[in-house]
Amino acid sequence: MSKFWSAFVNDLVPYVPGEQPKIANLVKLNTNENPYGPSPKAVAAMQAALNDDLRLYPDPNADVLKQAIADYYGVGKSYVFVGNGSDEVLAHVFHGLLKHDLPILFPDISYSFYPVYCGLYGVPFRQVMLNANYEIDLDDYAQPNGGIIFPNPNAPTGILTPLSAIESLLQRNTDSVVVVDEAYVDFGGETAITLVRKYPQLLVTQTLSKSRSLAGLRVGLAVGHPDLIEALERIKNSFNSYPLGRMAIVGAAAAFDDQEYFRQTCQAVIESREKLVGELAALGFEVLPSAANFIFARHPEREGSALAALLRERAVIVRHFRSPRIEQFLRITIGAPEQNDALIRALKEVL
Amino acid sequence: MSKFWSAFVNDLVPYVPGEQPKIANLVKLNTNENPYGPSPKAVAAMQAALNDDLRLYPDPNADVLKQAIADYYGVGKSYVFVGNGSDEVLAHVFHGLLKHDLPILFPDISYSFYPVYCGLYGVPFRQVMLNANYEIDLDDYAQPNGGIIFPNPNAPTGILTPLSAIESLLQRNTDSVVVVDEAYVDFGGETAITLVRKYPQLLVTQTLSKSRSLAGLRVGLAVGHPDLIEALERIKNSFNSYPLGRMAIVGAAAAFDDQEYFRQTCQAVIESREKLVGELAALGFEVLPSAANFIFARHPEREGSALAALLRERAVIVRHFRSPRIEQFLRITIGAPEQNDALIRALKEVL
Repeated sequence: MSKFWSAFVNDLVPYVPGEQPKIANLVKLNTNENPYGPSPKAVAAMQAALNDDLRLYPDPNADVLKQAIADYYGVGKSYVFVGNGSDEVLAHVFHGLLKHDLPILFPDISYSFYPVYCGLYGVPFRQVMLNANYEIDLDDYAQPNGGIIFPNPNAPTGILTPLSAIESLLQRNTDSVVVVDEAYVDFGGETAITLVRKYPQLLVTQTLSKSRSLAGLRVGLAVGHPDLIEALERIKNSFNSYPLGRMAIVGAAAAFDDQEYFRQTCQAVIESREKLVGELAALGFEVLPSAANFIFARHPEREGSALAALLRERAVIVRHFRSPRIEQFLRITIGAPEQNDALIRALKEVL
Repeated sequence: MSKFWSAFVNDLVPYVPGEQPKIANLVKLNTNENPYGPSPKAVAAMQAALNDDLRLYPDPNADVLKQAIADYYGVGKSYVFVGNGSDEVLAHVFHGLLKHDLPILFPDISYSFYPVYCGLYGVPFRQVMLNANYEIDLDDYAQPNGGIIFPNPNAPTGILTPLSAIESLLQRNTDSVVVVDEAYVDFGGETAITLVRKYPQLLVTQTLSKSRSLAGLRVGLAVGHPDLIEALERIKNSFNSYPLGRMAIVGAAAAFDDQEYFRQTCQAVIESREKLVGELAALGFEVLPSAANFIFARHPEREGSALAALLRERAVIVRHFRSPRIEQFLRITIGAPEQNDALIRALKEVL
C-alpha cells in the first residue's frame, strides 16, 4: 500500500485470469478458447481495415457493429451496447445498474469476477448456493435484492438454466435488474435475448471470445431495454469514448454476419464435447452436464489439484479452482479433436 | 432516468468527443489526429498477428509492449502501465490515485474529460485558472490538494509548461500524486518521464493516438514509480483482465520500436504547424504559441462559432468549445500540407 493510493485500492482483491503460458506445443485447455480460428470473413474485414486510416479515431458508437448485432437478434439498435470484451461490459453493468443499497445476488459457484467488480465499485452482494446437483435454482433468488446476475450456462459448471425458469424469475423479480451472462450460450443454450422486449429489467451479456473465436480481439456486448442501455452508454462515455478500435468494430461485425461458419464451428465443438464426455466417463470421471465449450469433471479417487499437476507435467493445461465444494473438479476446455485425444492419452497414463 | 440505474448515473454528464463525421472528402481538422499513417512496421506487425491465433486471449500483461516502452524511455518494465487508449488509463488514474478527501486540482481550461472522470468516481476537484496569457502557472497550485493533473502541452491551448516548472512543483508537492498528461508532448515538448525515478509521486501518461498515428487502435500508457503502477494494475485487474488485444499489443510495440519513422512524421507536423501559424497570423488571427499538433487561434473581428460554421459549409471541420474565456477560439488540428492549404483557402473566402 502507499499513501498515494485511493483508500479502497488497499482492499482490492483482483481477478486472476487463467494462465497464458508462453510455451509452444502446449495442449492449452484452461481458458475456454475456441479450437477453431475466427471466421475468414472477419479476418478479411480486419485485413481491409489495416491501413493508414488507423491514424483516425474509430466511430465512438461502433454503429456498424451494433447494427450487425441488432440484425442478428432482430432487435432495434437502441437495444445494443458494445464494449472492450464482456469483462468491460460487465464492469459497467455492476457500476451503472447493480450498485444499490440492497445486496445483489449471484451463485456461490460462478464467474469469480463478480465479487471482484463488487469490490471495485462498492456493490453489496450475497451469494446464493447452488443446489446439491450444482444447479442454479432461481426459486432461491426470491428475496429482496439490488439486482441478480448469473451466467447461463453457469461457469465453471457448464450447467444450463432453462429459459422457462428465467422467465418465471422475470415475472417475480420486477423491481431490480436481472443480468443473464451468456458467455457460453451458443454451445447448447437458448438465448434470453428473445425476452428483452417483454421484460424491461432484463439485460443479456455476451462475448465474441468463445463462440466467435475472437478472444484476441476483445469485444463484448449487452442487449436490453434502451433505458438500461442508456445507463451503460453514460458510463462508457464518462470512461472512454472509444473502447473499440477500428479493426475490432469491423472484425466483430463480420463475425456476426458469417452465420454459416459460426454454426459449423459451434456444432464441431458440441460434437467434440459429447465425445469427450463419453471418454471421461469411461475413465471413471463424474462429468456435470455441460451446455458450454468446457466440461467440469471430477474423479472419485483422485485429487483435483494432483490431477491438474500431473497433466501439466505432460504439457496439458486445464483449470483447477481452490474453492469450497469444487476443489475436486477440473474445468476442461473442449479443444480440437487432436487436443482432446492428447488429454485422454495423458489421463490414461496418469490414472 | 430509471429505477434500475445506480443513483449516481442520473447526475453523470458524459464527455462529448469531437465528431467523427461519416462524410468523404472532408478536411477533418477537429480531433487532433495525425495526418500521416502509422509506421509501416506497426502495420506489418499487426498483419503478422492477423491469423487464427486471434482465437486465443492476449497476454493480460502485454509484456512485449511494456518492454518496448521501457526500452524507449530507459526505465524498468515495472514503471510502465498500458491501457485501452489514454482515456482508459486516465480513468484508472482518477479512480485509483486521485480519489481522496481533499479536492484535486486541474486547470479551468484543459482536457474536458477531467471533470467527467470526477463525476464518474466521486472525486472532489477544484479548477485553477490559467493566467492572463492562457498559461498554466504552477505556483497557483501551492494549496492543499488530493492530487494535481494537467496536460503538457495543455489542451486546447497548445501551450507548453517548462520541465523546470514541473520539477519545482514536484519539489513542493510531495504528499499527493502529480499527473502530467503528455498526449501531445512529442510535437515540441520535453517529457517528464526523465523525472519519474527521482519523484515517486510523479505519473506521466501518454497516448499512441497522436504522435504514433494509432488513434484507431486504442493504446495509451502511464510511466511512474512501481508503487503508483501497482495501484493501476489492481484497478485494471479488477476491471478487465485483457484491455489490449493481440493486434494492439504488437502494433503499439512496433510503433515504439520504429524511431526513425516517428521522428520524421513528428518533424513534418511541426514544420506544417510553423507554416500554418504564419499564414493564420497574416490573416489577422491571434495564435497561442503551440507545442502540440494543433493550434488555438482567434480572430479579433469574427465570432469563433460563426467562423467554425462557415468553415463547415466549405467542408473544413475544426473544433469550437462553448466555454467561458475561450469561446472566441478555434482549435485547429495540423493536417497534411494540402489540408492546411485548403483551410487557408476557406478562411480567405470567409474573412
